[in-house]
Order: sequence, then structure tokens, then C-alpha cells
Amino acid sequence: MNSINSTRLTESLDALGRIGTYQDETTGLTGVRRLAFTEDDGLGRRHVVDEMKRAGLDVTIDRIGNVFGRRKGRDDGAKPVMAGSHIDSVATAGRFDGCLGVLGALEVVKTLNDTNTHTRRPLIVAFFSEEEGARFGTDMLGSAVAVGRIPLEQAYALTDRDGKSVRAELEHIGFLGTANERLTPPHAYVECHIEQGPMLRAANVDLGVVTGVQAICWHELTVVGRSAHAGTTPMNLRADPGVAVSRIQLALRELVRSGRFGDSLRATMGVTQFHPGLVNVVPNRVVATVDLRHPDDTVLQRAEAELAALYASIAAEEKVALTHKRTARTPNVAFASKVQELVARFATARGLSHQRIVSGAGHDCQEVAKVCPAGMIFVPGEYDGISHNPREFSTPKQCADGVNVLLDVLTSLAEEEGP
Amino acid sequence: MNSINSTRLTESLDALGRIGTYQDETTGLTGVRRLAFTEDDGLGRRHVVDEMKRAGLDVTIDRIGNVFGRRKGRDDGAKPVMAGSHIDSVATAGRFDGCLGVLGALEVVKTLNDTNTHTRRPLIVAFFSEEEGARFGTDMLGSAVAVGRIPLEQAYALTDRDGKSVRAELEHIGFLGTANERLTPPHAYVECHIEQGPMLRAANVDLGVVTGVQAICWHELTVVGRSAHAGTTPMNLRADPGVAVSRIQLALRELVRSGRFGDSLRATMGVTQFHPGLVNVVPNRVVATVDLRHPDDTVLQRAEAELAALYASIAAEEKVALTHKRTARTPNVAFASKVQELVARFATARGLSHQRIVSGAGHDCQEVAKVCPAGMIFVPGEYDGISHNPREFSTPKQCADGVNVLLDVLTSLAEEEGP
Repeated sequence: MNSINSTRLTESLDALGRIGTYQDETTGLTGVRRLAFTEDDGLGRRHVVDEMKRAGLDVTIDRIGNVFGRRKGRDDGAKPVMAGSHIDSVATAGRFDGCLGVLGALEVVKTLNDTNTHTRRPLIVAFFSEEEGARFGTDMLGSAVAVGRIPLEQAYALTDRDGKSVRAELEHIGFLGTANERLTPPHAYVECHIEQGPMLRAANVDLGVVTGVQAICWHELTVVGRSAHAGTTPMNLRADPGVAVSRIQLALRELVRSGRFGDSLRATMGVTQFHPGLVNVVPNRVVATVDLRHPDDTVLQRAEAELAALYASIAAEEKVALTHKRTARTPNVAFASKVQELVARFATARGLSHQRIVSGAGHDCQEVAKVCPAGMIFVPGEYDGISHNPREFSTPKQCADGVNVLLDVLTSLAEEEGP
Repeated sequence: MNSINSTRLTESLDALGRIGTYQDETTGLTGVRRLAFTEDDGLGRRHVVDEMKRAGLDVTIDRIGNVFGRRKGRDDGAKPVMAGSHIDSVATAGRFDGCLGVLGALEVVKTLNDTNTHTRRPLIVAFFSEEEGARFGTDMLGSAVAVGRIPLEQAYALTDRDGKSVRAELEHIGFLGTANERLTPPHAYVECHIEQGPMLRAANVDLGVVTGVQAICWHELTVVGRSAHAGTTPMNLRADPGVAVSRIQLALRELVRSGRFGDSLRATMGVTQFHPGLVNVVPNRVVATVDLRHPDDTVLQRAEAELAALYASIAAEEKVALTHKRTARTPNVAFASKVQELVARFATARGLSHQRIVSGAGHDCQEVAKVCPAGMIFVPGEYDGISHNPREFSTPKQCADGVNVLLDVLTSLAEEEGP
């Protein structure tokens, strides 16, 4: 049984992880900050493109900046098998999120090169643009454009907080490619990714066979009350949007704990911004975000409707004006059972324990799944699977287990008959 | 009965209000932003110094940047009577806070000049540095240094968020004076100020006779939990500092509503900062502020102790680490009954209705009250007395009423016998 080079994979993750670092004030650790289309993302991209070329891949860049490294097949006209993920990061990231899927697929290619193995179908290693949505507000941006969910011009026009556009920033870092942004459907797509959660590690299993991605919606709330001097305004004359937002924060948890939506509902308030934000002034405006997820879109919609009613009643009680807009909405996605079965079979063959798992996070795979059979392999993470944080960590063995199964699944898919 | 020139006073408030403006995104109005020792504060200071000189005052600047304009008395060796306030502002201010006391005192001088009136005692128009504490975190900084509560070197060493020091910034704007910062106690001090609250306007009275300033304390809370992916981490495995802070926000209101501290307790959370502050990440750290006030320091201390216990129990329940530091603490101050009686008597003589009122906000007068008999005149404000906001507004008549009584009280005090 052919196996990947675990040391080389770890070194490859480390090398990319040294690009675009920052000093994390909370943990004291060095973290990764490669927000999409920044100078540091450009450095990371050039590094991976160089690695792809060194592995003999033919690199193309499309008009939304997605990058594809192609390895010839014995039957080079057959539809390719694709593997990949993303290398952009949130502002406070670790070394594994996304990068494992890209560098893992590249390690598969290197392993095939080492053993002079030629698959029937071509293989493509891909990384997609702005998967995190951390800079331009829309996650899975590159893969969503590639499968036609988001029109190119709409993606180009998105701006960051400084008003800089996707198109201008892509051009600025030299990754505004010329290849058609609409992906020619591959034969199949497989993505190896860290779990970014505590489940696999807690269950002490080696791998997760991902059945799909849960439904997600994001709200941005703007709550407007009345600014007032903290020392002089009696509490009953106040219209404090901060109090309203705090009540919503606690109502989110009650919604989950109520059990009315099963035990898989997740709700998070990740941002609140008080304006003017002064110690002795009752704020006149608070902006807050809500992230709501459930494996079943129908249930998520019920929870969302209940939440909207809660917003309205809390706003009325607190005498504030509350508006909310939905800044993201993706239904749950089921991955191809064929890919799930291959992952499970090869894990078993390698003596690796595994379990089915629903992805809590969104991934490029859910976009690519719209155009071809697709699936994911989850690798457990230490420290409760902490992610989007410099403490994010999967051991060399955990990573190698995932990428070995990726090797097996890709080579199996790449031998399949047909066009 | 001599009276001030209301039109000239309004024009004077408007002229200073045009210095250091900003466009307020919430109200759409033009507001004032003259944070202490910024370029705009420097412009405002030079404008007022010019006005003082034009009114014939002899201007001195002390080592903490407090500015004094002196008008000779008939008995020029007698202790002077002082009036003033501040001209620095919060980031989102109107035209009246502080400025009314300074420009009102200057209008009194102009009125005395017009009528060729010479008081027995010298008169001093003063404005004190960084009253708001909005830039360097310590309010009443200039007057506190002037009366010896805060040592000069300690004040100099305070820094803003960018690490710039009080001393460097004072020097930068050309207001690092040479006069001794310790104030030679005047015969008396009187400050005319907007109420910054809804009470006087709601009671439909013309003036407030201020009996003192309530006790104030500020806390800065730092709450540390565990960062987690919003989509993958079950609620019961979270340690979310945002939830803890929301519970504290609501506990503050319950503390006030309980009635256990009478009906005069005020509690406000004016700032919360979520880190990393991303829509799909449970924050690992939240910083928040609490402003707590009561007319009686003993009661405030009881409320503060109860609040500290609440912090501890909420932190324990939410499995987060909470530390709080007291960033400000001033006991309640009682103003001189002599000054209160003069204000009430002259208000009555002018046919102005008035009532006793405790100041909810801190003022320079509470510092100067440590070294001489001192008191304040409150002017009502429109729109529930909104302040620290571009909508802050007192009518020309409201302002003139206050400054007319200031004229009466100052001239009366300035004729008093003695050294």
C-alpha cells in the first residue's frame, strides 16, 4: 500500500504557515493572518503556485483568482479528479484550516510522482478564493463563482471595510487570471479538512466521513436607541440598544437550550459594536451579528422565523428600532454517497477508525458538490478542535491519516471508467 | 438690573462650535469633536485665548494647560472670584457642554466692560484641561491637578490609545504653560453648565441650583473565555465571554430596578469590544465598561460591592475568567451653601423659577470645591437634555438666564469684604 510522506506534509504546512503571521495578544502565539487578496495572501498564493510547478503541475488561474494545478492522466481527455480547499484565512487563524486540503492534495501528487504512478484520469489540485468571507463578507466566494451560484460581476463589486473591491484587490496581488471562471465539472471532488470542532477527538476516532454540511444563516442587526448621558438619565427614560442586544444574546442560547429544534442547533453572537462606544454614554446604536446553523434547512428556517419574532418583541419592549439583514444563507448540502463509501472503505483498509459526521462549518466542497459527486474527509483537532485561532492543531499523524485516505480515494476515483 | 447680551453669547457659542466639527453618521448633524490636546482642541483654545485678550483679560497658562484670564479688581490684592469650565469635548459632542461655562463667564466680563463696572475683587475666567477624560481616561484631569488630587508627573505620563502622552501632546499644541499648576485658592468659584439630563426641562423650571455632584465609579471588565468555531462547537462546550457580558449588562439594570439603593442609582454599559470580533467565531475575549453613579458615596460603595459579587458569580457560571479594574472613582461632593443661596436668591430676583438638583455628571467645580467655596448653575436642555451628542441644545433664553444669574452671583461675590 502506497503512503504519503508525513514529514514532507508537515514541513509543507509549516512553510505556508510562516507566511502572513501575526503575534496573537491573547494566546501569545504566532498565528496566521492571510485575509483574501491581501499582500500576505498574495505571498501565500505565489508560494503554493511555486510548489505546484515544482511538482510538475500545469497551473491556471481563473477570473476570480481560483488556482488549479493539473497533472496529466494516462487518458488525458477523461474528466479529471479534483482535490483542494483554500489558503486564505480569518484574521486570527492557525496553520491547518484549508491549507491541509490544498497541501494534502499536493502531497498526494508528490507521492504519485515519487512512485512514478500515472492515473488514468488527470488530477487537479485546486485552491479557491476568499473561502472564509472574512474580508469581503461572502464565504466560499471563489467556489460559489466557479459553480455559477454568484455571478462574476457581483463578486467583483464586493468591497471590504475600506471600500476596496474584490476585482481591484485581485488585480493588485497579480491573481486576476484569464481562465473562464465557470468550472468544467470534474469527475469528482474530494476535500480533506480539519474538523474545526471537538467531536472526533472526543470520540477518539481517527477520521470523519463527512455526510454533508449543515444549513447556515447569518444576520446583521442594527439596533438604534437614544444616546444619553450615563450620569443623568434615569433608567426608565432610556432606550438603550446595548440592553436589547444583550437580551438577544441570551435569547439565542435559550432558543438552543429549549430543545425545540433538536440538539443540533448552534447560535452565536460574534460581533457587537457600540456607538459612540464611550464609558459614560448610553449608546445610540449597536451593530451585532448572529450566526445560526442546523443540519436540516427546514428546521433552520423555523428557528430563524422564531428568532425574527424575538428580535421584534425585544425591540418593542426596549423601545429601540431594530433592523436585521441576512448576510449569508446556505441550505444544508448532502455529499455523494459514493465518495462517503470510498472514504470509509479505505479508512478501514488502513486500520483507521472513523465515523460519519455533519460538517458544522461551510466548505468549498459544498459548492463544488453542485456540479459533480463530492465529499470530504475530516481530520480531528486537539484542544477541543479549536480553529480560527493560533492554537488550532492537528498532529502529524492525524494529518497523515487523512491525506493517506485522500491518496487512496483520489487514485481509486482516477481509475474509474467513462468519459 | 444689569444684563448680559444674549445675542453676543449665542454668537460666541456658535463661533467656538464651528471649531473641530465632524459629520455625525447617526443624526446627520454637524457635531463637535475637540478631544483634549488634539489639533482641534488647540484651535479651540487659541480662539478662546484670543477672545479673552480682546476682552482685556491677562492670560496665563499653567503646566497642565489650564488657562486663566484675569480681570483687575478695584482692590487688586484681594482674592479673586473665579468662573469657568472646560472646552475639550467627547468624540461626539454638541456646542454647549463646558463651553457655556467658559464663554458665559467671558460674556459676564464683556458685560462688565460695556457698563464700565469695576468689581472690588479681581475676576478670573478659567478653562481646565481634559475635563471629559475621553482621550486620556481620567476625567477632570486639569482641575484635579490644579487642586493637588493628581500629581503633575502622574498626569503627564497618561497616554491615549496611540501611546501619546499628555505632556507631549500639550507641548505639541503649544499649551504646556509655565505657571505653577497648583491653584492659589480663589475667594469662590462658580460654574454655569448645561444639566445634561431631562429633569429641569421636564419640571419646566428655568434654572437648577446644584447642591453637589453624585459619586461615580467606572469599571473596565476583561472577560476571557475560549474561542470556538460558531458552527461546530456545541453550546455546552463553550465558554463565551460575550454571554457573560450580556448577563452583566442585564444584571446592571436589575440592580437599579431592585430599588435596594433608592431610586437614584444609575448604571450603564457604554462599551463592549468582542475579540476577534468575527461573525462565525465565539469570542475569546470581551472588554466592557461599567459606569455606576449615586448621590451618596456610601450607597454607591454598597452597590459596587454587590456588583463585584455579581461579576464573580456570573463568571463562574459561564466558565470564563473575569477581571475588573476601577478606572475612575470620585465620592459625592457637596457645594457651598453660600453659593447655592446666592444662585437661588438672584434667580428669584430675576423672576426665574428654579429647583435644587444633584449633578449626575462630574464637573471641574467638584475639584475646585476642595480649595474654596464653589457652586454651579444648571441650564435646562431640550430633547430630554441629550448631551455628548450633536443634538445637545439649550435655547438662547435658557443660556442667557443661566449667565445672567452667573453675572449676579459673580458681582455679588466680588464685592465681598475680606482678604
